[in-house]
Amino acid sequence: MEQQTTYSSKFPRIVIVGGGFGGIELAKRLKNKEVDILMLDRHNYHTFQPLLYQVATGGLEADSIAFPLRKIFKNQNNFTFRVTNVDAVDPSRKVVITSIGEISYDYLIIATGSDTNFFGQKEIEHFSMAMKTIPEALNLRSMILQNLEEALVVTDIVEKRSLLNFVVVGGGPTGVELSGSLAELKKHVLPKDYPELSIEDINVYLIEGSDELLGVMSDQASSKSRLFLEEMGVNVYTNLRVEAYDGNVIKLSDGREIHTKNVLWSAGVKGAVLEGLPPETIARGNRVIVDEFNRVEGQEYIFAIGDVAAQITEETPNGHPGVAPVAIQQGTQLAKNIIRFMNNEQPEAFKYFDKGSMATVGRNKAVVDIGKIRFQGIFAWFVWMFVHLMSLVGFRNKLVTFVNWVWSYFSYDRGTRLIIRRFSRESMTEDPMAK
Amino acid sequence: MEQQTTYSSKFPRIVIVGGGFGGIELAKRLKNKEVDILMLDRHNYHTFQPLLYQVATGGLEADSIAFPLRKIFKNQNNFTFRVTNVDAVDPSRKVVITSIGEISYDYLIIATGSDTNFFGQKEIEHFSMAMKTIPEALNLRSMILQNLEEALVVTDIVEKRSLLNFVVVGGGPTGVELSGSLAELKKHVLPKDYPELSIEDINVYLIEGSDELLGVMSDQASSKSRLFLEEMGVNVYTNLRVEAYDGNVIKLSDGREIHTKNVLWSAGVKGAVLEGLPPETIARGNRVIVDEFNRVEGQEYIFAIGDVAAQITEETPNGHPGVAPVAIQQGTQLAKNIIRFMNNEQPEAFKYFDKGSMATVGRNKAVVDIGKIRFQGIFAWFVWMFVHLMSLVGFRNKLVTFVNWVWSYFSYDRGTRLIIRRFSRESMTEDPMAK
Repeated sequence: MEQQTTYSSKFPRIVIVGGGFGGIELAKRLKNKEVDILMLDRHNYHTFQPLLYQVATGGLEADSIAFPLRKIFKNQNNFTFRVTNVDAVDPSRKVVITSIGEISYDYLIIATGSDTNFFGQKEIEHFSMAMKTIPEALNLRSMILQNLEEALVVTDIVEKRSLLNFVVVGGGPTGVELSGSLAELKKHVLPKDYPELSIEDINVYLIEGSDELLGVMSDQASSKSRLFLEEMGVNVYTNLRVEAYDGNVIKLSDGREIHTKNVLWSAGVKGAVLEGLPPETIARGNRVIVDEFNRVEGQEYIFAIGDVAAQITEETPNGHPGVAPVAIQQGTQLAKNIIRFMNNEQPEAFKYFDKGSMATVGRNKAVVDIGKIRFQGIFAWFVWMFVHLMSLVGFRNKLVTFVNWVWSYFSYDRGTRLIIRRFSRESMTEDPMAK
Repeated sequence: MEQQTTYSSKFPRIVIVGGGFGGIELAKRLKNKEVDILMLDRHNYHTFQPLLYQVATGGLEADSIAFPLRKIFKNQNNFTFRVTNVDAVDPSRKVVITSIGEISYDYLIIATGSDTNFFGQKEIEHFSMAMKTIPEALNLRSMILQNLEEALVVTDIVEKRSLLNFVVVGGGPTGVELSGSLAELKKHVLPKDYPELSIEDINVYLIEGSDELLGVMSDQASSKSRLFLEEMGVNVYTNLRVEAYDGNVIKLSDGREIHTKNVLWSAGVKGAVLEGLPPETIARGNRVIVDEFNRVEGQEYIFAIGDVAAQITEETPNGHPGVAPVAIQQGTQLAKNIIRFMNNEQPEAFKYFDKGSMATVGRNKAVVDIGKIRFQGIFAWFVWMFVHLMSLVGFRNKLVTFVNWVWSYFSYDRGTRLIIRRFSRESMTEDPMAK
């Protein structure tokens, strides 16, 4: 339905597309400022992406990592929210085109994050599983459990093996966390759940195109994570790329083939940029080029923060890494700068303060780089847990997540191995068994 | 695929169809007995149905009321489990026909529970929402939230009203709990979430065909629950039936019409009986007639317990009520009787020990009948909470549910108001916005 969302026109209207880390931080920092904020998102909740892999492997409820956006901002008077897809922007008319109509803005902030990047390989995209949203993580969970159930009843050896081979593509933090999590499931949980399966038949592979895992982290983190994974039984293959996958056999660049029904793709991301911007403002990886104030190149009233934005500088020739702290810090800085722009004051350039990075590798290990400090092992795991908990929005979710984690830790158990909605690739309709 | 599930034939094979209250209790009581148990269920988890209405109104995570069946029985050696639909039984060959092939049994226990009963009214069935499974409860949650979002953007007054009218059909415990829950949402939660909506435009109706709510409970419970609901703002209409519903307007038996997009159907259940039994063994409400040992009439090796079974006696001319304690007690008794049957010993007739019934009516009220004791109000609510918690399988879920409840109680808040998968009736395919 066509609908102009009308507002009091006393204050400038700031439209924020995307309720991710960046969008939320920006909106929060504009509380009590003389602006009208309208946030648009295709979901009515924020997805805490760092823990998606735990939902996919049945260690966390989906709801624990989803934060209803209306609830986050219920006490902020200058904030309004609408659930909608945003398809395009028309800079000449200062409107965005959405499924609920055209919405005009005084300032537009694109904070749409990133999508999974299959690098144009359509067949691989069709047959593998991505994990960027909660529905995708739940589909992954269903698929894994369904394939385990199916492995019990098939008689063909090759088919059984392919149901029990799990191939994770991409050795960044997501791939490391996912493969580590699957290895734990295999070692600590599945033997009790599936006593008739020979657990040794389950194989977890991690395929990485460069020569090391966690390339963005220190050498120490890279080598330790590989060591941890291999100790957990993951087959780590570096310097290998995926050439093809047809739903049954995955072909690697050295000619090797693996029979598998389970390919989990975490090998790349691309910016979720809006249509309507001039093509010369879109950089490599589908990210929109912004200046040091996060203003889109060539635009006066359009900004971009987070994964979707690329701030090209000497230190960051490809933009900043697509991680949460970048989005959050850019949101904070942009909130100040927007006010300065409105008051014709001098804005301040963005400077990223890298507080470090970490990745979990299994139940009680993580690798952490903070400045020059590097540590791994159980202590790292506690640091990781603490940091993630503190960043969770809302006390209730912190508590539920904490309960789940503590339970998992002390009981070697995964609490929520549920096939709620049966996943079916062929038709992508609700499988009749999914009632 | 056709597959005979093979087992050691030393012990008799007991096939239990259904992992509900009855099936689980029966299987548990047969631990360490000289039998081979095979449980079949279309889901890989048990659904704790009494709390489904909380999932539907965003007060509880779905995973909190779902208990993976493999996990429940991981320490029981004589228990095996398969996820499958069971379509029919062939008593002459002693096999059940399932999606994973034919499975032979020595003893068959039908414990499939009940389905929603629309009494043959196909149009009503198509356009209204049932709530017997977790996917249904999640669809209901999505629909409620989607309609609230839509109400913000529509301009047509009638359409807006119909999006904000919620009609619950059926004044039994489920209908009472659902309508009470919606009224709470309206009063305590939605004003903060949707400040632009005029909350007075939201209406909750409860339609009941007989002259009182909670007809199976005491008169005191019936009248108190009506009083509580009306105080909470629910429009309670008794002695009214639904004549028709076309997705826009619901027609009641007194000629009244309500414009609504939200019809929640909890007005009847019918047994989920298997095909293949002689029609004369099926009673009113699609329940299979069993004797005092829960053996299906005219069968020697087929039994039925719980909602799907009707034990016709003088005191129970229509069988026992379809409640959890009946299923659990029948499961316990049948476990003993099965062993007696196998040893040619005299079985013992089932006797239902009615420990009472209760229904919640909103955040901190419930109505409880225990024997001659009747009480209502806040104390009743604590009793209800305690009983439900104690019956929850698994400590972890108890804790997570408890955390949610305590949070909800102290903060007047519903934690999980999430549209994870967009509900779309027209196509029943994954809506592209559901990514």
